[in-house]
Amino acid sequence: MASGHYYHFINGKFGLLTQIRSNQSHLSTCYRPLMVLMVRNQSYCSSIEVDIQEYLKKAIPVRPPVSVFEPMHYLTFAAPQSKAPTLCIAACELTSGDGSQAMAAAAALHLTHAAIYTHENLPLTDRPRPKPEVPHKFGPNVELLTADGIIPFGLELLARSMDQTQNNPDKILRVIGEITRAVGSQGIVAGLYRELQMDQPDINVDRAIDYVCKKKEGELHACGAACGAILGGGDEEEIEKLRKYGLYVGMIHGMLNGVGKNKEGLMEEKIEKLRILALKELENFDGKKVELISSLCSA
Amino acid sequence: MASGHYYHFINGKFGLLTQIRSNQSHLSTCYRPLMVLMVRNQSYCSSIEVDIQEYLKKAIPVRPPVSVFEPMHYLTFAAPQSKAPTLCIAACELTSGDGSQAMAAAAALHLTHAAIYTHENLPLTDRPRPKPEVPHKFGPNVELLTADGIIPFGLELLARSMDQTQNNPDKILRVIGEITRAVGSQGIVAGLYRELQMDQPDINVDRAIDYVCKKKEGELHACGAACGAILGGGDEEEIEKLRKYGLYVGMIHGMLNGVGKNKEGLMEEKIEKLRILALKELENFDGKKVELISSLCSA
Repeated sequence: MASGHYYHFINGKFGLLTQIRSNQSHLSTCYRPLMVLMVRNQSYCSSIEVDIQEYLKKAIPVRPPVSVFEPMHYLTFAAPQSKAPTLCIAACELTSGDGSQAMAAAAALHLTHAAIYTHENLPLTDRPRPKPEVPHKFGPNVELLTADGIIPFGLELLARSMDQTQNNPDKILRVIGEITRAVGSQGIVAGLYRELQMDQPDINVDRAIDYVCKKKEGELHACGAACGAILGGGDEEEIEKLRKYGLYVGMIHGMLNGVGKNKEGLMEEKIEKLRILALKELENFDGKKVELISSLCSA
Repeated sequence: MASGHYYHFINGKFGLLTQIRSNQSHLSTCYRPLMVLMVRNQSYCSSIEVDIQEYLKKAIPVRPPVSVFEPMHYLTFAAPQSKAPTLCIAACELTSGDGSQAMAAAAALHLTHAAIYTHENLPLTDRPRPKPEVPHKFGPNVELLTADGIIPFGLELLARSMDQTQNNPDKILRVIGEITRAVGSQGIVAGLYRELQMDQPDINVDRAIDYVCKKKEGELHACGAACGAILGGGDEEEIEKLRKYGLYVGMIHGMLNGVGKNKEGLMEEKIEKLRILALKELENFDGKKVELISSLCSA
């Protein structure tokens, strides 16, 4: 039986409404308006996702040399979607920016995620357990190379996006700094290292899951939200609040779908705590967009 | 018996002096001043290399988490040195900049090169021929991850270098665009793809070597020289001339030490032609530094 704190959007302000315990009888009366809300918010997120996919399709057409661009195109879209790029656009809009100003950053975030996903599933000589659910249309050599090209391509898109988006170069440089830090040795890569060690007998699995979720999904989502807020013109407080919101959203995602998936322990309780922490970060934001971005910490 | 065109530095101008055929008797009279010149120039390049290594050592100390930073530090310095970072500093100084303004870019170029070198030598399940001369202190999994962190780290250094170097953000963004393009699917990665295909029976090996040297070493060195010129304040003509100079220097390097190494064919003749083309690009530059940078196309 799941329990939850639910936030509601009242008089243009977002706040903790009530704690609802989901027994069946209660569900029928309390969940209906929430369900309507969730459907509307999810369609907002879906439309952002569609925009990002469209942007990427135009940015990576299959063109000569086909031997390079075909796997690049394929691997970009083969990776499961991450919420980090969606968060980036939503945070930009929440801080009064236009979503298009954050589109190159959102694309760079997806490309980063797709490249890491490809490398994570690469059949290496010391990685004997390929996941059967991950198809390999191309050989490991080509997958390795292609992903090596995908991250720089994303950053190149971003570096060259200045003219189109009217953003000043300081903001773009700051966003590049954010993404490179999130993917690097203090972000995703640190999480992946710890994940490699999870089979060791002396490891505290529970703490390791927290760390991996924080560094891997957490840092990317935190980065996505912070980048959106930077590009949208948020002030430092808003950027940091959205960074934290993104961190919690990413950690929830890691616990549900990443290293925490199907793990025994206090996962449900942890996720519930993270969700409350996440929504608290949105409390001081005004406007309809806050309701929309909040849906990213559910599901 | 090798033959060569030699350039000399006369009255502050750099120009084609004479064609010397290297028979032994001629060598003793003609080569002595050239030898003195070469030693001086090489010590200029060596001192740049030392500066870059020092900068990198400070940028990547072995610090917690050690499991991440130890392999990062090791793999950064395990890769053979490339001339692309040296070219970057030398081109910056040639265009009246201070070498320190290009130091973060030079470091990013070395890190890019080191990461690609690590991935090139990764034992993959479909790459059955590891080079015996490349040691593997860490397992493939750790090498893959570490190199994944190294390129973003270099770009992060660059994105954050603005304050220290007094460069304007437009220049830094342009340099990031240059490096990401050079490493990506139209640069090094395209070269590596073609290299994978070199064993196929229908391939024209001679043309494939040209292509691989152009895309792999050529693009990185071209990028290094262009980045140095951008950061040094060169005008567009100077940037493009130095980019071409770097391209030829890189191709020579690829033919001597890369895919062209120990290959039959017209390699010597090709290298000689590239050297002449390279030095021609320096003809319109003034000052002592042109003599120094020119040494990078020999050896």
